[in-house]
Amino acid sequence: MRDRVRIVVDAMGGDHAPAEIIGGCVAALRESDRISLILTGRAEVIRRHLGNESFGEDRLQIIDARDVIETGEPPVAAIRRKKDSSIVIGMKLIRDGQADAFISAGSTGAVLVGGQLLVGRLPGVARAPLAPLLPTKKGFSLLIDCGANVDARPEHLVQFAKMGSLYMEQMLNIKQPKVGIVNVGVEEEKGNALVKETFPLLKACPDIRFAGSIEAREIPSGEVDVIVCEAFVGNVILKLFEGVALTMLGIVKKAIKSGVLSKIGGLLLKKPLKKELKQYVDNDQGGAPMLGLRGLVIKAHGNSQAKDIRNAIMQCQRFHETGLVEKMKEVMKEDI
Amino acid sequence: MRDRVRIVVDAMGGDHAPAEIIGGCVAALRESDRISLILTGRAEVIRRHLGNESFGEDRLQIIDARDVIETGEPPVAAIRRKKDSSIVIGMKLIRDGQADAFISAGSTGAVLVGGQLLVGRLPGVARAPLAPLLPTKKGFSLLIDCGANVDARPEHLVQFAKMGSLYMEQMLNIKQPKVGIVNVGVEEEKGNALVKETFPLLKACPDIRFAGSIEAREIPSGEVDVIVCEAFVGNVILKLFEGVALTMLGIVKKAIKSGVLSKIGGLLLKKPLKKELKQYVDNDQGGAPMLGLRGLVIKAHGNSQAKDIRNAIMQCQRFHETGLVEKMKEVMKEDI
Repeated sequence: MRDRVRIVVDAMGGDHAPAEIIGGCVAALRESDRISLILTGRAEVIRRHLGNESFGEDRLQIIDARDVIETGEPPVAAIRRKKDSSIVIGMKLIRDGQADAFISAGSTGAVLVGGQLLVGRLPGVARAPLAPLLPTKKGFSLLIDCGANVDARPEHLVQFAKMGSLYMEQMLNIKQPKVGIVNVGVEEEKGNALVKETFPLLKACPDIRFAGSIEAREIPSGEVDVIVCEAFVGNVILKLFEGVALTMLGIVKKAIKSGVLSKIGGLLLKKPLKKELKQYVDNDQGGAPMLGLRGLVIKAHGNSQAKDIRNAIMQCQRFHETGLVEKMKEVMKEDI
Repeated sequence: MRDRVRIVVDAMGGDHAPAEIIGGCVAALRESDRISLILTGRAEVIRRHLGNESFGEDRLQIIDARDVIETGEPPVAAIRRKKDSSIVIGMKLIRDGQADAFISAGSTGAVLVGGQLLVGRLPGVARAPLAPLLPTKKGFSLLIDCGANVDARPEHLVQFAKMGSLYMEQMLNIKQPKVGIVNVGVEEEKGNALVKETFPLLKACPDIRFAGSIEAREIPSGEVDVIVCEAFVGNVILKLFEGVALTMLGIVKKAIKSGVLSKIGGLLLKKPLKKELKQYVDNDQGGAPMLGLRGLVIKAHGNSQAKDIRNAIMQCQRFHETGLVEKMKEVMKEDI
């Protein structure tokens, strides 16, 4: 076994910070002996929420950070100015080799900018994509990229395909993950300029198993494991997926509430429906990884609960123990 | 009252052609005296399906077309080569002033190419967008463009906004429709190069009521009436919307079927759920209009039933009676 994986958790980020964030840390520390955590944020607030919990200095450390980056702040300016924030301090710990991974449920923009500027990309990596897992009928597909760097070039998408494949193989145990590129049709001549240029590059790439184009309609079926697209399109997919799913659930709830009989119907359906929806609601990974960096950065959902933070910590543990940063370094250095 | 609106219907296009197509035509002819229809396709097949129905030569005409364009065919080649197809013959009738509108549930590609090449754009219109209505919590939003011409320029998107606003105002009686542009955030500095360039143009356009950016998550809420995007993104939105909605319905069905009690629950919920879903299943317009052409072209869904074709015919009647082609001509000639 390797040494304990050292994970920094931003105690101040997210809708339910710091209570749920710290709750997730405590749960993870109890569960796994292979992690040590560093909580960044206002020390006195963190201590108050920890209460009587005690894990020893080698398992749990608190690093005081007085600033808080708000969700609405322009991220580049925030990262530059708020040097005493939980995000900046936390990410610098990775840069300086004092930690392996960083988790935040705070400002997505600040996490993405901080990942690039503070943690830094691996040699050969042109862009560090944000790659959330989408729930599908078959399990999960990695949607890469949903980050802040829109207007990608073909060579960026090829790198996304390589990094995404490695992630799915190592983290979700999928042998030779299937890669698809988001397109407006499955025929090879279809697509916009970016897709048309990228298609032959993906086809020729020996490091991936390219399955061709995928139409957005097919995404929920889970036919491919890695869904490649540039960040503008990825962002639209991620958010529409959520928007439509919540709308449909709202419709079912409204129907249930519409009368006495339908309420009884709803009660009878509750358990099996919950079971079927479980996969769509639970995010085992706890957050989206930002790939191609010198350490792991996880962007947890803004409304993360303790169990999500716990899951994100476990994702970091697995990421570290599979040696994914080193493996990615190995694969990506061909691109230097 | 104007003269009867002359609508060409492609009898051979669609999964349920010709039976459902002809069924829809018969229903519309019975219902409205203000339309006359021209059915294009194999005359003997059409006659067989019409059976004893008779409306007189001035209400229903059949024009023989021997070729059929299949869905998989490359559309440009198909339109050029299959001159004796129901689509080519039907569209030429509009070009030659012998008809006002054209409906097909056949190959989307062929309809889009035919619209541009055979029917032709109005003066000043650079691109003719395909603009389906998306069901929302508040009614419908027009998603413009979902057509075949990807990689649009900013001035194209501004034209889409103008044409879409006119459509929603005239066809759905929405006073001063709100226009939003699909973006990755609501802040003005967000977006890809296309959106950043288009944003100030939309803001400055006096013909529309611009409401700023809309994130994909908000699309189902129906906050804006006209959703502007380039066709690649529009295609992803349209197809993912459908894919996620069907997946969610599949989950509910699976939960209902999982046991005896849940089946009873499903029975109790059936009616209210159907009522809530009605708006999402019924497409009152029967198909997506292709705007900016010298006549109206409607692309009906491939799996159109008789009621959808009937609805598409009624859309054509309304389109004609509001004088929308002339109004659009008036608005768009400023762009010449």
